[in-house]
Amino acid sequence: MVNVGIIGYGYWGPNLVRNFAQNGDCTLKRVVDMREERLQQVTKLYPSVETSTSADDILTSSDIDAVVVATPVFLHFEQAKKALENGKHVLVEKPLTSSTQEASELIEIAAKNNKTLMVDHTFLYTGAVNKIKSLVENGEIGDVQYFDSVRINLGLFQPDINVLWDLAPHDISILNYVCNFKPISVNATGVSHTPNGIENVAYLTVNYEEGFVAHFSCSWTSPVKVRNTLIGGSKKMIVYDDVEPTEKIKVYDSGYDVQPSSDEDKRKVLIDYRIGDIHIPKLEKTEALFGMSTDFIDAIDKGSTPKVSGEDGLEVVKVLEASTESLKNKGKEVIL
Amino acid sequence: MVNVGIIGYGYWGPNLVRNFAQNGDCTLKRVVDMREERLQQVTKLYPSVETSTSADDILTSSDIDAVVVATPVFLHFEQAKKALENGKHVLVEKPLTSSTQEASELIEIAAKNNKTLMVDHTFLYTGAVNKIKSLVENGEIGDVQYFDSVRINLGLFQPDINVLWDLAPHDISILNYVCNFKPISVNATGVSHTPNGIENVAYLTVNYEEGFVAHFSCSWTSPVKVRNTLIGGSKKMIVYDDVEPTEKIKVYDSGYDVQPSSDEDKRKVLIDYRIGDIHIPKLEKTEALFGMSTDFIDAIDKGSTPKVSGEDGLEVVKVLEASTESLKNKGKEVIL
Amino acid sequence: MVNVGIIGYGYWGPNLVRNFAQNGDCTLKRVVDMREERLQQVTKLYPSVETSTSADDILTSSDIDAVVVATPVFLHFEQAKKALENGKHVLVEKPLTSSTQEASELIEIAAKNNKTLMVDHTFLYTGAVNKIKSLVENGEIGDVQYFDSVRINLGLFQPDINVLWDLAPHDISILNYVCNFKPISVNATGVSHTPNGIENVAYLTVNYEEGFVAHFSCSWTSPVKVRNTLIGGSKKMIVYDDVEPTEKIKVYDSGYDVQPSSDEDKRKVLIDYRIGDIHIPKLEKTEALFGMSTDFIDAIDKGSTPKVSGEDGLEVVKVLEASTESLKNKGKEVIL
Amino acid sequence: MVNVGIIGYGYWGPNLVRNFAQNGDCTLKRVVDMREERLQQVTKLYPSVETSTSADDILTSSDIDAVVVATPVFLHFEQAKKALENGKHVLVEKPLTSSTQEASELIEIAAKNNKTLMVDHTFLYTGAVNKIKSLVENGEIGDVQYFDSVRINLGLFQPDINVLWDLAPHDISILNYVCNFKPISVNATGVSHTPNGIENVAYLTVNYEEGFVAHFSCSWTSPVKVRNTLIGGSKKMIVYDDVEPTEKIKVYDSGYDVQPSSDEDKRKVLIDYRIGDIHIPKLEKTEALFGMSTDFIDAIDKGSTPKVSGEDGLEVVKVLEASTESLKNKGKEVIL
Repeated sequence: MVNVGIIGYGYWGPNLVRNFAQNGDCTLKRVVDMREERLQQVTKLYPSVETSTSADDILTSSDIDAVVVATPVFLHFEQAKKALENGKHVLVEKPLTSSTQEASELIEIAAKNNKTLMVDHTFLYTGAVNKIKSLVENGEIGDVQYFDSVRINLGLFQPDINVLWDLAPHDISILNYVCNFKPISVNATGVSHTPNGIENVAYLTVNYEEGFVAHFSCSWTSPVKVRNTLIGGSKKMIVYDDVEPTEKIKVYDSGYDVQPSSDEDKRKVLIDYRIGDIHIPKLEKTEALFGMSTDFIDAIDKGSTPKVSGEDGLEVVKVLEASTESLKNKGKEVIL
Repeated sequence: MVNVGIIGYGYWGPNLVRNFAQNGDCTLKRVVDMREERLQQVTKLYPSVETSTSADDILTSSDIDAVVVATPVFLHFEQAKKALENGKHVLVEKPLTSSTQEASELIEIAAKNNKTLMVDHTFLYTGAVNKIKSLVENGEIGDVQYFDSVRINLGLFQPDINVLWDLAPHDISILNYVCNFKPISVNATGVSHTPNGIENVAYLTVNYEEGFVAHFSCSWTSPVKVRNTLIGGSKKMIVYDDVEPTEKIKVYDSGYDVQPSSDEDKRKVLIDYRIGDIHIPKLEKTEALFGMSTDFIDAIDKGSTPKVSGEDGLEVVKVLEASTESLKNKGKEVIL
Repeated sequence: MVNVGIIGYGYWGPNLVRNFAQNGDCTLKRVVDMREERLQQVTKLYPSVETSTSADDILTSSDIDAVVVATPVFLHFEQAKKALENGKHVLVEKPLTSSTQEASELIEIAAKNNKTLMVDHTFLYTGAVNKIKSLVENGEIGDVQYFDSVRINLGLFQPDINVLWDLAPHDISILNYVCNFKPISVNATGVSHTPNGIENVAYLTVNYEEGFVAHFSCSWTSPVKVRNTLIGGSKKMIVYDDVEPTEKIKVYDSGYDVQPSSDEDKRKVLIDYRIGDIHIPKLEKTEALFGMSTDFIDAIDKGSTPKVSGEDGLEVVKVLEASTESLKNKGKEVIL
Repeated sequence: MVNVGIIGYGYWGPNLVRNFAQNGDCTLKRVVDMREERLQQVTKLYPSVETSTSADDILTSSDIDAVVVATPVFLHFEQAKKALENGKHVLVEKPLTSSTQEASELIEIAAKNNKTLMVDHTFLYTGAVNKIKSLVENGEIGDVQYFDSVRINLGLFQPDINVLWDLAPHDISILNYVCNFKPISVNATGVSHTPNGIENVAYLTVNYEEGFVAHFSCSWTSPVKVRNTLIGGSKKMIVYDDVEPTEKIKVYDSGYDVQPSSDEDKRKVLIDYRIGDIHIPKLEKTEALFGMSTDFIDAIDKGSTPKVSGEDGLEVVKVLEASTESLKNKGKEVIL
């Protein structure tokens, strides 16, 4: 039985604690947070779980097999590294680290120590995202042409990372999982409305080989909560609306065909439109976080690779790191 | 009584013809289109209106006082110039011209000839946009912090201009009308899915003085029609959903306050959120195009400046021209 | 070429006039309305159409072949009768007449004179209703179990008929067209908020053989416009939302199965639920009123029966007449 | 500290258990259910709570002060009676009992024993319903003219009560709470699609003094979940959409005015429409069930009357009982 320790009982921590506590294949041994009042909450809800204000009580303790790092991003590297070096399996909240160098180092250490390193890209465990993946993989939507996501909301300004680092990992990880295309370069623009200069509204374009583009629109300052993604294919198009309670995925049998022009002038193209039926598939209803926690414990038990490896986490950090460089250079293209 | 001639009876032309035909303060004298079958449509619906396949029958004819140019963009400059030089008042479809130089030249010629030069930025005559303008101007939403518009649809690939030149003029003109801020620079990214290389998906960021940013997301290849604009203010925020039949404008009494930190470290900011009531104002229901056509005839009759002058058209073309340069330079910032 | 005369240029009249004017297979000869200012509108838009304030200029005129009666309901019988007796084909706005006796008499007169008698149940010419009919007829939704319609709005209080006579004909005619079940009895309840005692909110239950029920909820005093119909089948269920611009029909692959209980006690039933995919079929986009007017002229030309005959109109009036009796008797069941 | 026992850990029981377990002002002592596997769930989540399969371990036990009855409706009377006679305070799930006679008897016994008798009309503790009540009470919507509720869903066929007894108590209790009008009579219609003859689709009209009517549409066989209520006032109208996550209440500044007719004929009324702004008030976000459980414990502690007394529960049962009689008599009006 895997003994689990969780560091960080802030916004997302309670969800992690609940899911690992309910997981019959592991034992949630200990929870760490710097704030005593947060730990009292843990004790009230889970009397059998130990608590501590010192991260080392998890990172270096001999009775912990697996560590969940749910602290602010700037602590991820240090804590994950210490845990791996102390022979523990590690699950890190997204984004994996603050830099690609840190992410690469963690991957190396995990490999050397033969431990599982996993990142919590929760959306990859939802019925919606897996339905999209199967629609793309079985060719139903044809060639994927664009991915356009809007993830905006009011609230939760992060003190140490900008809105792209906070929100875009969800969508970048979905895109990578669904399409697995190789990005070429990145452009990012944004603005900060706070004295600390951290962007709270930002836009990210990721450029790929000819014919595919991804765009991410992120904001902490929208009065409405939008989590909407368009995925355009040459045959069909998908609208993924995560705010919708039941009809999250709509598949449009709509598109256009470019007619070969008999004309010499290739600028003269004829476009035929096609608007057809819409299909709303039923989705699996399992809780994504439960699937994620189960995957982590399974990977440890079986020595297998989890759905989201350290490498997957690194791919997301690469894009984020490049976006920061582009932001600093006023939107200039940054080659990956 | 002003005699009006309209050149171009394509997608938008029929709407222009209908509105000028119904306008009691002018006479729709003649319609020109290169396609005979289109002109037959005109004759069937408006037996008293003359038709011709030659633009000169309007541009140089002595019985025409005012010309409406509703042809493809690449013809705007040439036709508007000829009309002005022949002593006619001119209304041009958006965007005014293909370049700032052309737009400036038209403005000069109009001034020299003492003729009205106007651009059809139709949305500026809607109840929704005028309600937004009044909410901004009376201070109800506080300082405007961002403008974020999505205008996407399936269809109507233009053969001579990209999707930004086609769709963004609507939103840029709305932003200029509502806020009248001075843009500093532009970044644009996009992709083409047709052999002619014309972008059918594109993203435009317009940068302003610190604390304000505008972003425009445009596509001809979305399976759903979205015309949504967020306008964030320091006090309230507006959502403008033009697809909504009646509830187009929602004013959110929501926002956040940045608390001054006693700490030396200005990175440590405290954010207080506020989520309050939502107000959906009743809007004026007049047809925008009727207001636009009336404004043109009024300006001619009174010698006054219409709501949308040549200068207003030029401001939009400036942003578009810079966006094309940025697109060519892989998203690089282009100073205005 | 059939010469058409239209009596009544009120709320619906302009739509009828427009469609018959555009119909190439007939000539709209004359329009009658008691109000001179309404007729001036006709003359302005259709200079070649004659106008008159006297219904007899259509009902008894020798140059009219077909009469469209678009007057208040209490005039339908008298005008349609006169027209038929003068050898004209007749199209009557819904509901056909104020009573079943009148409707039966019109049917008889039409038969005796060998003339077409048709009722304008416009919705039967929409893509949405015809899609529903085909889904029911091809067995895709299984046995139809209920029909539940809500048609509410703010406005248009009628001075001579209550809200059921005004709005329910749409839904009753749709139900009859789609299912063609034989109703057994009717219950109706309602209330009036005006001094004339005419119900502006009313509810109608139509009872059928065991296992099928239809319910109609009608109101002139709702702040929101709702036109929603649920059609439950033993295999699938349909939601028809006529306010929705494009996604009017949703077919739910959802339902329940009643398991035979091994128990003697038939009250102990086991219900298995099934929630599956949703399908939104593309609908034909033709204007319903154009299809209706074409059908009328076709039936005259070919001597065929139109989609909506006098008998179809009578079936609707039967239910309405019974509803009035039930309303007077405080909701008591009225046998048809 | 009040010791609480809960009988019934079925559909709603877990919510009750969770809320009473978290309530710091009482001790959840014991949970009873006939099914061992349900009780194991309780033990897993709340190790300190005792369990039993015998209702008497709560109803007659000396260490229980307050009993929550969450069993099927046919058991409510017997269990509540026994609890009250054994000197316990009692909270009963809606509807209070299967008959008015039983409800009256419980009220008497509670009064005689000086114990709290309360019914769980949960919606009366929601922010939405309390906002509606304040809008009605402060006169903002004017005279209330109608109440029209639709509560439909797929699922949860009850074996012992029909759909009106299951779903309408929510809406009847809301109506009584908001308006407190005295109903005069009831009409109900419905149909059963199961062999046990229990109606799964039913419609209820409740008649009041002239000018007010309430209608309830209930179904277990709708493919879509709808919980929508219209409340029409002489000044404004309210739409309450409980499925909407945040914008549950919309207040429409819309209506109509009946103009006094100079005419002798009172049938000739002039109606003026008014369509104005829409207001979406922010609502309190407290969990309704927590408010309900707190109210119960408070009433016991202070000897005060809870928000929903036995009398309030009786008023709801009166309407339901009359609806059953009307259903049996084919929709005939049943006087209350």
